[in-house]
Amino acid sequence: MTIVTAQLSVSLDGCYAGPLQSDPRDWLNGAEAAGFFRVTRWVIDAQAWRERQGISGGERSVNSDIVAEQFASAGAYVMGRRMMDGGEVPWGDEPPFRAPVFVVTNRPKNVLPREGGTSFTYVTDGVASAVDLARAAANGKNVAIAGGGSLVRRALGLGLLDELELHIVPVVLGDGLRLLTPELGLGSKEGIDLTPIRVLETPTVTHVKYRVEGRSELVLDNRGRDGS
Amino acid sequence: MTIVTAQLSVSLDGCYAGPLQSDPRDWLNGAEAAGFFRVTRWVIDAQAWRERQGISGGERSVNSDIVAEQFASAGAYVMGRRMMDGGEVPWGDEPPFRAPVFVVTNRPKNVLPREGGTSFTYVTDGVASAVDLARAAANGKNVAIAGGGSLVRRALGLGLLDELELHIVPVVLGDGLRLLTPELGLGSKEGIDLTPIRVLETPTVTHVKYRVEGRSELVLDNRGRDGS
Repeated sequence: MTIVTAQLSVSLDGCYAGPLQSDPRDWLNGAEAAGFFRVTRWVIDAQAWRERQGISGGERSVNSDIVAEQFASAGAYVMGRRMMDGGEVPWGDEPPFRAPVFVVTNRPKNVLPREGGTSFTYVTDGVASAVDLARAAANGKNVAIAGGGSLVRRALGLGLLDELELHIVPVVLGDGLRLLTPELGLGSKEGIDLTPIRVLETPTVTHVKYRVEGRSELVLDNRGRDGS
Repeated sequence: MTIVTAQLSVSLDGCYAGPLQSDPRDWLNGAEAAGFFRVTRWVIDAQAWRERQGISGGERSVNSDIVAEQFASAGAYVMGRRMMDGGEVPWGDEPPFRAPVFVVTNRPKNVLPREGGTSFTYVTDGVASAVDLARAAANGKNVAIAGGGSLVRRALGLGLLDELELHIVPVVLGDGLRLLTPELGLGSKEGIDLTPIRVLETPTVTHVKYRVEGRSELVLDNRGRDGS
């Protein structure tokens, strides 16, 4: 059964990168990249990620197994425009996705076919529509919201996500681009409930996979005063 | 050996309460309380917490064991003034601490002795001084930063914490009082490194205990391109 998943590496304070670097030509010199590199270092160190990129080395580890699982379970991807812009050149002729990728954008553009099973299709009528297209293309596998963080947040806020896996890296950045912000549009006494369905512990990252249950009202309890 | 610890229940987005309720007389009706009650519900449900408050019922569970461990390991507490103001009346004649509590405040006040081993000593020269006093009073047990969140943040920012345990509750609040904020005063390419030393998984909360390693510079890696 196709479900819609997302996974993101975040710092202990919930940032997937440092503070926004407004000039993309200077991205590597900014704090945004420094934070992003720090929270994704475990991925770079994983053998399964390197294999997909045609890079030797890396660790065979729980972390690597998780990367392999993500690639194996995704039948199609949904991606934000900013992530696509940043990745288009470095991903090269044979991007690591090996599946159809639907890019959410305001600017229409022709499909970009690539080698190895990847294609980039531009979708201009919103993330829900891109998810529908990806679902139809996923061939029974999962639809993975590939990122960036703001697209994952939008999908969560719209109730489109079935599962969210956070790779919680033991570092505090203090400031940066956060996954979970007021832009989710929750009411002042409203939350999104989740259930942890898998926790995997490693020295460099704690992986927590959640099932997304949906929005619910926050209610006061009686702080145990009636003994019940 | 005495170490300085802190633990806090937080939402998946790192909030220990909803957005600040500026009128304390209306606290229970505000979003701050609604968020605080939600993320601390697991504590109220724990048998060990209820026993300390003289309340019957509650669950014997991993969660309860963690509450019991916290009480047993603390030889003295350091507390913020706002938490003390909110707790002074409800804690009553025999507060649950059963140990000396040092309250960080700007307003000098006489020591408040209480039954059952608790006393409240007001400290006006800062959190580091309060930690020193608590260390001397802890009798070989740990110094626990009891909260609230802003005091835990200050202790972390000042490098006073040896361990931080987060009880990560599977709910997204969207907005609220955050533990880890820019007020930590980190540089733009600086992080605080931690090491997860214990992860305990329950359906209602994921407990992750970290050793605090200290500040370090965020550095770029080569994204695996040299194969190393």
